[in-house]
Amino acid sequence: MGEKKEKKSSIVAVELAKEQKQVSVSEFFLKNRHLLGFDNPIKALSTTVKELVDNSLDACEEMQILPEVITQIKQTGENKYVVIVEDNGPGIVKKQIPNVFARLLYGSKFGAQKQSRGQQGIGVSASVLYGQLTTGKPAKITSRIDPKHPAHYYELHIDTSKNEPEVVADKEVEWLNKAHGTKVEIELEGKYQRGKLGVEEYLKQVAIANPHTEIVFIGPAGEKIIHRRSAKEPPPQPKKIKPHPYGIELGLLIRMLKQTKARTVQQFFTTEFSRATPAVVKQIAEKAQISANAKPAELMHQQVDAIFRAIKQVKIMAPPTDCLSPIGEAILVDALKNGIHADFFASTTRSPAVYRGIPFQVEAAIAYGGDLPQEDFIELIRFANKVPLQHQKSACAMTKAVIGTSWKNYGLQQSKSALPTGPVVLVVHIASVWVPFTSESKEAIAHYPEIMREVKLALQEVGRKLGMYMRKTVRMNEQRERASLFEAYIPELASSLASITKEGKTEIMQHLQKRLKKDLPLLMGEKKDD
Amino acid sequence: MGEKKEKKSSIVAVELAKEQKQVSVSEFFLKNRHLLGFDNPIKALSTTVKELVDNSLDACEEMQILPEVITQIKQTGENKYVVIVEDNGPGIVKKQIPNVFARLLYGSKFGAQKQSRGQQGIGVSASVLYGQLTTGKPAKITSRIDPKHPAHYYELHIDTSKNEPEVVADKEVEWLNKAHGTKVEIELEGKYQRGKLGVEEYLKQVAIANPHTEIVFIGPAGEKIIHRRSAKEPPPQPKKIKPHPYGIELGLLIRMLKQTKARTVQQFFTTEFSRATPAVVKQIAEKAQISANAKPAELMHQQVDAIFRAIKQVKIMAPPTDCLSPIGEAILVDALKNGIHADFFASTTRSPAVYRGIPFQVEAAIAYGGDLPQEDFIELIRFANKVPLQHQKSACAMTKAVIGTSWKNYGLQQSKSALPTGPVVLVVHIASVWVPFTSESKEAIAHYPEIMREVKLALQEVGRKLGMYMRKTVRMNEQRERASLFEAYIPELASSLASITKEGKTEIMQHLQKRLKKDLPLLMGEKKDD
Repeated sequence: MGEKKEKKSSIVAVELAKEQKQVSVSEFFLKNRHLLGFDNPIKALSTTVKELVDNSLDACEEMQILPEVITQIKQTGENKYVVIVEDNGPGIVKKQIPNVFARLLYGSKFGAQKQSRGQQGIGVSASVLYGQLTTGKPAKITSRIDPKHPAHYYELHIDTSKNEPEVVADKEVEWLNKAHGTKVEIELEGKYQRGKLGVEEYLKQVAIANPHTEIVFIGPAGEKIIHRRSAKEPPPQPKKIKPHPYGIELGLLIRMLKQTKARTVQQFFTTEFSRATPAVVKQIAEKAQISANAKPAELMHQQVDAIFRAIKQVKIMAPPTDCLSPIGEAILVDALKNGIHADFFASTTRSPAVYRGIPFQVEAAIAYGGDLPQEDFIELIRFANKVPLQHQKSACAMTKAVIGTSWKNYGLQQSKSALPTGPVVLVVHIASVWVPFTSESKEAIAHYPEIMREVKLALQEVGRKLGMYMRKTVRMNEQRERASLFEAYIPELASSLASITKEGKTEIMQHLQKRLKKDLPLLMGEKKDD
Repeated sequence: MGEKKEKKSSIVAVELAKEQKQVSVSEFFLKNRHLLGFDNPIKALSTTVKELVDNSLDACEEMQILPEVITQIKQTGENKYVVIVEDNGPGIVKKQIPNVFARLLYGSKFGAQKQSRGQQGIGVSASVLYGQLTTGKPAKITSRIDPKHPAHYYELHIDTSKNEPEVVADKEVEWLNKAHGTKVEIELEGKYQRGKLGVEEYLKQVAIANPHTEIVFIGPAGEKIIHRRSAKEPPPQPKKIKPHPYGIELGLLIRMLKQTKARTVQQFFTTEFSRATPAVVKQIAEKAQISANAKPAELMHQQVDAIFRAIKQVKIMAPPTDCLSPIGEAILVDALKNGIHADFFASTTRSPAVYRGIPFQVEAAIAYGGDLPQEDFIELIRFANKVPLQHQKSACAMTKAVIGTSWKNYGLQQSKSALPTGPVVLVVHIASVWVPFTSESKEAIAHYPEIMREVKLALQEVGRKLGMYMRKTVRMNEQRERASLFEAYIPELASSLASITKEGKTEIMQHLQKRLKKDLPLLMGEKKDD
């Protein structure tokens, strides 16, 4: 019987108690690095570039400056590289540099109801952590906030047991002809690779979604790639918004009511939520059978519960959408034309929608024909808040939406539960105040039905445009064939007519040809590029 | 020009600095609940049951007692349920109860190099957090460590801004006829559903992987399901092990050398690693060109780097494997036979392997035929450390390995990059000191090549056994047909022989039949069950 082996419960309980302890978030991610996109050397390198470039672009956006981002990758040993990313952003004030780069879950974007590339305060510190884990080297940061201030240079480790910065070096340095900006150097174990999942492709896609950015890349072999900006203006800066009543959870509402400084329920809603007009609050209060002037602190659990249920019954205007910054239909097409030679381009920017009270907006663009490969699956390029998503394609709601769209209606081949095939590049972009990713590595979008729905609608819009183009070209090709067939018979026809009419054969031929050209000018002319 | 809009860099930098702050891990997961498996009400409910039951089984294992786990789900309102899980484990000492249930990243299992169901110290607290978020209600915990101590009752909230427990109630209570154990009640917003992703299926699978456990389930409609234990002994308790040199990273090695109390490199390795015998350390030291008696603290970066590279060049015995607790071939088949009526069963337990210095072990079992559906995809049941994985099937390395195995060789239909079809239940189990999951919700295994390889080998082993059975039955069926065909002609044959030999027709028929039975006894008899 198992009973024999059985230990004394209280002794086991005490033993266990000794082992129970708090784990720092750094220790956690150190052991779960693959959650942050560091599951293999190739990905580790591109993830590091990604996190640094994203931060640079966010910083430049805050300043409304046209970004100039220089990314360099140098090999320092076998499977060892140093990634250097330099921007012309506002820089970081001295005392915050260690926290921003050597502390996980530290940042300015987490709470903010505002569209930005970073949102967790994990990414960059995670790269520093990984570099430290695999090379033992500190991250090197140089930052300057304006010409009147000196540039500050830090070398940083992360004390993983405390999730706190460990300053290795800290000094002022000369930074010639750099008025303001930040430069980060991280050495790490990695593997450099070209191709769809590589750094070059990543930067190429960044240029598509951020055409106002100048991107310089210097690779390990010294090769230099420059993406010049095709847009001369930075996009309008997205605004912060307050949470929308529809997005609130009961538990959160209870907490907010406990902590609020507002003296009445009315004031609480109008000051801490968006779209909560006095009229709206009045309705909520009536449905919940409480007074709009009740003191938040004095509400009973049942009353709060009633308010919570009332919110869902009251019609409230959708959240404001100036917090969103889409790429834009025209810009998206221009950006695609920049890099791809195709016969047909189309794009769409949906009007904003809402999931869990959080506003989001979906865009899609398509390129067809030209140099694009005929036989393969279409190329799907995914963006979230203008950041390219290179990995976990199959786990992404966007991919699912593409597969779930019947592309046969639009003239593409597609076999069951697969991407369509054909000479197509398809772009999907979701912009949101809070993008729901399936993991901290932010590689795939979670399957929220509202998001799936919007993506599908966007795909159908560009799909229909493609369909029209396809039908048009198909018709044209058929007529062109008929025409050239007829043209081929002109000589015989001409000679028989000649023998009947006694006219000269050549004149008749010319007549027939002229006639044909007149009837079907388009067809006999060159095929147009759209 | 964009320049016009441009803001002053230093001002922006200072603004940003004001917003930069530390985010507590609770706040983070509150906002990223889907990372923890709370992305929809159905999953929220089953995830909560999962986390509580896993903890109960881990606790019972520590005590080497045969577990008795009672799970009850009661509906408390529209989309509101309370989950109650009670076990006969060792209980939790009073002062640790708040930490264990109301603090994320707090637990006894994170650092431990030991196989257990929980490993992150997140799961249960996450359920408490979700319950609090969606209902505002505290979690209720009753625990007792032995009859001589009173039972303690707590009501707990999580202070998410600090990731600390907030004690709502704390008292001693009567707990009749319960010598020791823990009972947890969590109320949450959820949805109860039967079927493959539901709680009932989860508990059914728990019973398969943990046949020494008695599981009682009482559903919202009052329905009661009992899984009696089919094994009378708890499995041997897995041992803790020290890290293996092959699994160490340079950065970690540097830190360990800084922090170690060992006075020599030799002592450092032999005390802090497994399989680092003096002989091994001697070789490492030689290759690294340092003395085995060097003081760890005094090593230069280059020397540590040399040691790190030397480790990989020295042959070191694989880590001990008594830290692993597989289910076992025989037990796995018995457990399957318990719940499934099939014609053929087979299983295999691979010998342990290693990824990143971490030992792991793969098992597979298969059931074929009987009542199992003929036409559908096979049913794949995945386990990690004896915990059923119900979600994210397509993202899981195990699924990929199944798809990557050519089942046609073993007599099953399979179309490209899909699961095979046929009347099959396939079980795959990975046991490890540290299972690499693709997310905190622990629903899918990350794609480590070493793991993929072992899973495939296990699948091929059970596949071959299935193939032999299939061929055998196919041959048998053919011969059976031939035999019965012959049998059908016996009367005619008999009568003609009778007219020739002047023997009685009936005797001849009996002779022929006897003969047939003698030659092909198996065939004429009943088809066997294996």
